[in-house]
Amino acid sequence: MSESLGCPPKSKWRVVGRKLCNLESWRRRVPITIWLPSYSADSLLRDIIAGVTVGLTSIPQGIAYAMVAGLPPQVGLYSSIFPGVVYAIFGSCKDVTVGPTAILAALLAKYVAKSADFAYLAAFLSGCLILLLGVLQLGFLLDFISKPVISGFTTAAALQISASQLKSLFRISGTSGGTFIEALSNFFSNIKTVHAWDTALGVGTIVSLLILKRSALKTSPMDSRCRTIFAAGWLYVVRARNALVVLVASILAFALFKKSIIPFALTGKIEGGVPHFGPPPFTTTVKNETLNFERMLQVFGPEGFVMPLVAILESIAIAKAFAGTKTVDVTQEMVAVGACNILSSFAQCMPVTGSFTRTALNHASGVVTTAGSLFKASLVLLSLTLLTEAFYFIPRATLAGIIMVAMMSIVDFSVVRKLWISSKSELAIWVLTLLVGITAGLEYGIAAGAVADALRALTAAARPDLHKQHFKIGNQECISLALVGTLGYASAEHVPRKIRALDHCSAQVFILDARHLKRLDIGVVENIISAILDLEKNQHRFLLWNFDASHQNLFETLHPGMASRFVTGPSIDQFVLSLDVDRRFSSLTVT
Amino acid sequence: MSESLGCPPKSKWRVVGRKLCNLESWRRRVPITIWLPSYSADSLLRDIIAGVTVGLTSIPQGIAYAMVAGLPPQVGLYSSIFPGVVYAIFGSCKDVTVGPTAILAALLAKYVAKSADFAYLAAFLSGCLILLLGVLQLGFLLDFISKPVISGFTTAAALQISASQLKSLFRISGTSGGTFIEALSNFFSNIKTVHAWDTALGVGTIVSLLILKRSALKTSPMDSRCRTIFAAGWLYVVRARNALVVLVASILAFALFKKSIIPFALTGKIEGGVPHFGPPPFTTTVKNETLNFERMLQVFGPEGFVMPLVAILESIAIAKAFAGTKTVDVTQEMVAVGACNILSSFAQCMPVTGSFTRTALNHASGVVTTAGSLFKASLVLLSLTLLTEAFYFIPRATLAGIIMVAMMSIVDFSVVRKLWISSKSELAIWVLTLLVGITAGLEYGIAAGAVADALRALTAAARPDLHKQHFKIGNQECISLALVGTLGYASAEHVPRKIRALDHCSAQVFILDARHLKRLDIGVVENIISAILDLEKNQHRFLLWNFDASHQNLFETLHPGMASRFVTGPSIDQFVLSLDVDRRFSSLTVT
Repeated sequence: MSESLGCPPKSKWRVVGRKLCNLESWRRRVPITIWLPSYSADSLLRDIIAGVTVGLTSIPQGIAYAMVAGLPPQVGLYSSIFPGVVYAIFGSCKDVTVGPTAILAALLAKYVAKSADFAYLAAFLSGCLILLLGVLQLGFLLDFISKPVISGFTTAAALQISASQLKSLFRISGTSGGTFIEALSNFFSNIKTVHAWDTALGVGTIVSLLILKRSALKTSPMDSRCRTIFAAGWLYVVRARNALVVLVASILAFALFKKSIIPFALTGKIEGGVPHFGPPPFTTTVKNETLNFERMLQVFGPEGFVMPLVAILESIAIAKAFAGTKTVDVTQEMVAVGACNILSSFAQCMPVTGSFTRTALNHASGVVTTAGSLFKASLVLLSLTLLTEAFYFIPRATLAGIIMVAMMSIVDFSVVRKLWISSKSELAIWVLTLLVGITAGLEYGIAAGAVADALRALTAAARPDLHKQHFKIGNQECISLALVGTLGYASAEHVPRKIRALDHCSAQVFILDARHLKRLDIGVVENIISAILDLEKNQHRFLLWNFDASHQNLFETLHPGMASRFVTGPSIDQFVLSLDVDRRFSSLTVT
Repeated sequence: MSESLGCPPKSKWRVVGRKLCNLESWRRRVPITIWLPSYSADSLLRDIIAGVTVGLTSIPQGIAYAMVAGLPPQVGLYSSIFPGVVYAIFGSCKDVTVGPTAILAALLAKYVAKSADFAYLAAFLSGCLILLLGVLQLGFLLDFISKPVISGFTTAAALQISASQLKSLFRISGTSGGTFIEALSNFFSNIKTVHAWDTALGVGTIVSLLILKRSALKTSPMDSRCRTIFAAGWLYVVRARNALVVLVASILAFALFKKSIIPFALTGKIEGGVPHFGPPPFTTTVKNETLNFERMLQVFGPEGFVMPLVAILESIAIAKAFAGTKTVDVTQEMVAVGACNILSSFAQCMPVTGSFTRTALNHASGVVTTAGSLFKASLVLLSLTLLTEAFYFIPRATLAGIIMVAMMSIVDFSVVRKLWISSKSELAIWVLTLLVGITAGLEYGIAAGAVADALRALTAAARPDLHKQHFKIGNQECISLALVGTLGYASAEHVPRKIRALDHCSAQVFILDARHLKRLDIGVVENIISAILDLEKNQHRFLLWNFDASHQNLFETLHPGMASRFVTGPSIDQFVLSLDVDRRFSSLTVT
């Protein structure tokens, strides 16, 4: 039984129309209207615990990622607050935590180097584009970025971000570098300027984080009550480890500061309170030159599209990873992330998307609804009003250590073995994406990977399998070629070549079997016709079997003489047998 | 019988190695070594006649196309001479005539507006790229430019070139415009500056050419000898019509000049003799600023690649159109056109490729070998030494008329009807290419078309047909899904979605049938595994039937528990029947 035996397909426009008139489908677009009415006190408690846990990580990561982008530290905190509130309203996946991410920050850095205004405009424009793609239901375009490209890009990004942190980790001179290669070469050329205290603190941070991460205690129902409680408490310490190392390092820096010793590079003054609200900047000043909106767009250039693309890819990938067996509403996620970016750009935020580490933490902390995001945002807002004096003392080497540990979980070399087994050409695309990413820049890496992928897919589409069968009907030797699926423009050379190759066969009758043919591009048809006419000059005969009306019509439009070759029916035998009788084909060979 | 029943495939490297050691395959790369040894006096005569006929058209077209590009007129003549000599040596298609073409000239114009040096460098770089693609046998990349894109691009080019000639045809003020839209708007805003004499001459040229083109006499064997001779003579006049109208118009202009009346804009002084030989310019001066090679490359930008691309597309398309049933050696054509451009760039030539009109004329004139090109080149060279004084008097309106008539044969709106029948999406791509081409520029048109084509092909690849079958084995209801052909990364969402949709079926056993599976990307496998594991939680059972070893290996690497689901054999029945007996699947659902 074929698939078509279901209910008849509905008109697409009627489906869309019905959706637009349906309250339920509008409520799906604002998920808070679904979960809030049945929200319970138990859920509230769980969401508060998860929100506070994630908030404790959001504070140091927010500051750190703002610094990766070259923005003032408070921007990273703003970007944890406002998107959190918006996502609580529009988000459809309870676990997803939206905020600044290392990769978006790294992509943003080169624009921020010109002016911080580019960060806020990037958030606005990215948001508009993501929202538009969501509303137009163009999420399927993301399918065209393959797994190897995403993996190669992520690894290149993690390597570049790690390398850019070497400067803060060792407190060396020079720049943090635009690409991985630049950052490494800066590191080696300034290696003599290393500061021992910062290095010790940075390395200490990394080691502490790695030890803490692996120190969660395993419990079993047979354990004593005391041990169970201790394990639960310790788990909380493990989950708050980022905040913890920052706290310890800051207290150390503060104590030394009181004794007038400042051995570490510190974060410095952070502006407290709320940001200036207002529309994102559509003009800016770079080196005393005023750039209008058009000039700002030119600065972003085509590679500016990589930021919204990566933002969607990250948030969808994360949503899927934590959705389990539930289906992710890709459209709604795009609407939510788009709205987060647009609305936050009015409050001096950098581009945001789902963060893998904080989403995992949110999930592990047992969040129940997207209200968790609200409590996370509240905690970060509280810290901005109460703790700005304390933030002054966060050593930069500690933040660099936190970033580098976060990057270790992103780098994925295990994929190399899998791809080696899966296919060498996919591995080549992974390597290409990685190499271009770490040498020429991340945007060019993902672009090179996507183009290589498309060429690989087109090459496959250019060489479709034409199943050949040799058989005898009566005393006629026949060969049939099955045209299957989509024969697109890329196969316009291959298919006729296969037909022409039949010329050397002993068979006289050739059958093109279109039973399973779905689509046929005009270039393919033209070349097939020319191959048929050439082979018929050599006394071969063609039957075009079971072509549907539109394909037959196309053949006849391009060459009216083709009409008599078409035959339709469950069996080809009668047509082959009648060939000798009516001899219509001998007259056709002269057309 | 399958195709694999031929001789076993040879190692690719051995084939390449054998070719490199084979004198015959080297001679194929220099076709003159094949045809010259058996060249006859009869062939010589025919080639001279064809060469002279084509030469008579090459002279006015060369001058006209140089002016389209904004180059001095003699450059168009040089570009008919040197490439002609090179093609006679390396060319493999006797009919193809290489020289300046209207489309290449139009693409070149914006660079020449900065400096003529860009023309010679473009010839050199295009030649290198074409030669490289030929040597690396990358001709198959051309398959990725579809028929609708080529047709849309050609039509856009013809419209733009025609519009750019309005300025000369009506002798109006202003510019000839960068795009079709700009040229049209310049025409309408300067329409009051029309010169009546030039307009009359230009329109007269067009009308004369169209009448002459249709005036060839039909002959039959019954005709009198006198009439046959007259018809043959008249046919020669028809073929030389471009030279003829130039001759008549120039004599008119000269006669009026003698009476001190200069009603028409004239071509003006042409530098006679041979060009300066030397390497192409790797530095140039634009507005008193010296541009080095790198800066010149930046001026070309990525859209510079369109010139060599169009050069290959034109010459291959023409070679195929005139090859009849013979196969075109695409590699050799690329080598020949590449060599033509490289060597000619040392003699102040603009980029060249096969010209449709002159190739058709060459074919109609009965050329026998590529020696015809040599005689064409000789005639043009002769004109450069003897006729430069006469060239002064060629009216520009006549040249504009010649160009516009040539463009009429390129514009192809009949394709719209064919595409309407073939597929609306191909028509949309044709329209996109045309519209972007005439508004934003030809390069952007072809780029937009190619990207849209790739997305269309990828979309088709993203939605493969999975043939579903419902059947009963014993008392087990089964459904099989056939995975056919290439399941590339773009289908990574679609295939698992189809598998998950089985969840609502009454059947318990699902069979993934991989008999006809060719390629499977890692992203697809990951998502299939996740779909299988989720459905197995709902008590469904999966059999993975006839996967080949490498695919099976990939499944097991990604999820070791998959191993027990693989079964291989001609019939699935035994495996389904054994499911209830060993109950191995009930234990698997917990993995």
